[in-house]
Amino acid sequence: MGLVVLKFGGTSVSTIQKIQKTAEQAIRERAAGNRVIVVVSAMGKSTDKLVQMAGEITDCPDKREMDMLLSTGEQVTISLLSMALKAQGVPATSLTGWQAGIETEEVHSNARITEIDTDRIKSHLENGEIVIVAGFQGVTCEGEITTLGRGGSDTTAVALAAALDATKCSICTDVDGVYTTDPRYVPKAVKLSQLTYDEMLELAHLGAGVLHPRSVEYAKNFRIPLEVRESHGTEIGTMIEEEMTVENTKVVRGIAFEDQMTRVTIHWEKKEDMRMAKVFTALAEKKIDVDIIIQGITGLGHGNLSFTIQTGDLLETLAVLEANKEEAGFSKLESEQQLAKVSIVGSGMVSNPGVAARMFEALTEQKIPIKMISTSEIKVSTVVPDRKMVEAAQILHDTFELEK
Amino acid sequence: MGLVVLKFGGTSVSTIQKIQKTAEQAIRERAAGNRVIVVVSAMGKSTDKLVQMAGEITDCPDKREMDMLLSTGEQVTISLLSMALKAQGVPATSLTGWQAGIETEEVHSNARITEIDTDRIKSHLENGEIVIVAGFQGVTCEGEITTLGRGGSDTTAVALAAALDATKCSICTDVDGVYTTDPRYVPKAVKLSQLTYDEMLELAHLGAGVLHPRSVEYAKNFRIPLEVRESHGTEIGTMIEEEMTVENTKVVRGIAFEDQMTRVTIHWEKKEDMRMAKVFTALAEKKIDVDIIIQGITGLGHGNLSFTIQTGDLLETLAVLEANKEEAGFSKLESEQQLAKVSIVGSGMVSNPGVAARMFEALTEQKIPIKMISTSEIKVSTVVPDRKMVEAAQILHDTFELEK
Repeated sequence: MGLVVLKFGGTSVSTIQKIQKTAEQAIRERAAGNRVIVVVSAMGKSTDKLVQMAGEITDCPDKREMDMLLSTGEQVTISLLSMALKAQGVPATSLTGWQAGIETEEVHSNARITEIDTDRIKSHLENGEIVIVAGFQGVTCEGEITTLGRGGSDTTAVALAAALDATKCSICTDVDGVYTTDPRYVPKAVKLSQLTYDEMLELAHLGAGVLHPRSVEYAKNFRIPLEVRESHGTEIGTMIEEEMTVENTKVVRGIAFEDQMTRVTIHWEKKEDMRMAKVFTALAEKKIDVDIIIQGITGLGHGNLSFTIQTGDLLETLAVLEANKEEAGFSKLESEQQLAKVSIVGSGMVSNPGVAARMFEALTEQKIPIKMISTSEIKVSTVVPDRKMVEAAQILHDTFELEK
Repeated sequence: MGLVVLKFGGTSVSTIQKIQKTAEQAIRERAAGNRVIVVVSAMGKSTDKLVQMAGEITDCPDKREMDMLLSTGEQVTISLLSMALKAQGVPATSLTGWQAGIETEEVHSNARITEIDTDRIKSHLENGEIVIVAGFQGVTCEGEITTLGRGGSDTTAVALAAALDATKCSICTDVDGVYTTDPRYVPKAVKLSQLTYDEMLELAHLGAGVLHPRSVEYAKNFRIPLEVRESHGTEIGTMIEEEMTVENTKVVRGIAFEDQMTRVTIHWEKKEDMRMAKVFTALAEKKIDVDIIIQGITGLGHGNLSFTIQTGDLLETLAVLEANKEEAGFSKLESEQQLAKVSIVGSGMVSNPGVAARMFEALTEQKIPIKMISTSEIKVSTVVPDRKMVEAAQILHDTFELEK
């Protein structure tokens, strides 16, 4: 008898009707002969409403109390879903994070799971019950309620799957799987039946938005087969596993893109003055995420450093850099906005050195200027003008024949 | 240094503004040199909204899951109140029922508190924090969330006051104290400065509606001085204690009244057939509350039994009785609707035998028919036509000079 963990996000449980449908989905999974754990998020916009209430009290709400407040959101969903199951005669029990034994570090608003005490869940499963667990939340050893931050419910689901050695962890969402690229922009995009963890990690990091990178990492570490599927449909979604089980000849598996990027360039008069560590330490202290980094030294002994940031962080970035100008030793700052990142991802790239070249060639042919390049074993990212982003994705989708 | 428990009901925390005012009230109490525990209910109509959601799922929601659902209501309030205090620089911590160590029996929707493990609350109090506890909720020894039923937050407050040997438990509400009678109907009603527990119990049971009888019983058992006061005002309310500390010459202290009552009368041909236990057992099984009971035997050997019920229970009562007609042995059923109960309450009655007579005389003089009478050591209740209820209360208020 297999054990399946199903996770439903906020949009999949945003109304009573959708909760009923989620109950039916869990019942189908049980009828297929599985023991079932369901992890749910807060209903639709309910978290936003709670955040808004806190905002009416203070601009800077205490983090411990925010966790106390926000964790009620999932508690509402689990109780309603359990009611819906019981009303249909299906044995079920809802458990909050602390009841489910999800222990975290003593950090508020962004805690990591340290351990899961699975006794209580196991005993309910042994009773033949569907166990419904509140996602996104846990408890410290001191009995304090914590939350797991962005993508928290995915993390809960994968962590439970790992702790209970589940057959599969299905992330049920409003799309029916992972696509070769975003079908809203590239109509030719097709659903992938399989991906490796690493490919999904790159796609997740690159803004594909379906899964939070943390949960993919977790699944990879514990070798939990991860499925991305539609919440209330019966179709099979995309499986994410360590190895491909079907023949796959494609080198490039997917294309991710993301706009709202800005390039910042710092110039030094002398390369000896380049105290780059100071630059990145100062930015990290302000929690500004830096993405692609390129360092250059000219023949004249000048030095420069370019990196990309979210455009929304630009003002703060410039302020931080100016404040550290002397310590970092640079002479000049420049920035270029309205950029986007377009990346190709695929595990097969490692053994196919020509892939990057084909990418640049295809873009250049269409007169799309490449501002920056960054590569890893399984991806190549380029920075292009944002008005060219979708066109670039379409061209690359064609070039690497992803629609086939 | 005294310890004060303040309880704020749903209407006192129904908006963010009111939560801010509640924070100010707690701060005032702390500034007066007290350690402070605040018990709060769910915000305004938020419980109704949760109940409605459950109702959309099923007509008969599982009780365990209802407790899971409803307990989120207070959790929202405690976190917001704690935020409001912290935002003003006042140290505070919110605790759910399980975090506050409020242990209950293993019953859902109407559990009784069995024990309070006060360690956690004490350690926060010792840190100089205002401790905010979710009312209405507790936890079983198995870690199941329970709720305490109607008047649950009052019970939480009084139980905490008892467990921590508080100086006082203040029930902060939308009225500024307990009145001689309901001022909405009898404008001459005046606020009482003191009442005994027993007087308050009779008034609570008789529909005065300010305090739940269970919390008054609890306070009486543990000799916790109870105050009923306005939520966000500075005036002293009504103190409820074992003994009166000020001279009080009034025999009657308050007048309670309640409409929507129906009298049911059962007739037996022979008094030997009067199987009354059967009657009341059958009603109790359907959870129909029976109030005043009068039994009569005529000279001819016939028997009868009259009792009052809530008019809303009439149809079910008649059905239950008809179904048990043979077993109970009666011959005929009658009922009279549109009745009300008007009662006078006062500890001094015990030693003043003429009080009931004065009551009947006053009502008779005004041609108010008395349908039934019931007495205890500290109260006399009469059943009158409901259209005469307010008039009766006014007359009695004058007769016993309660406005003075």
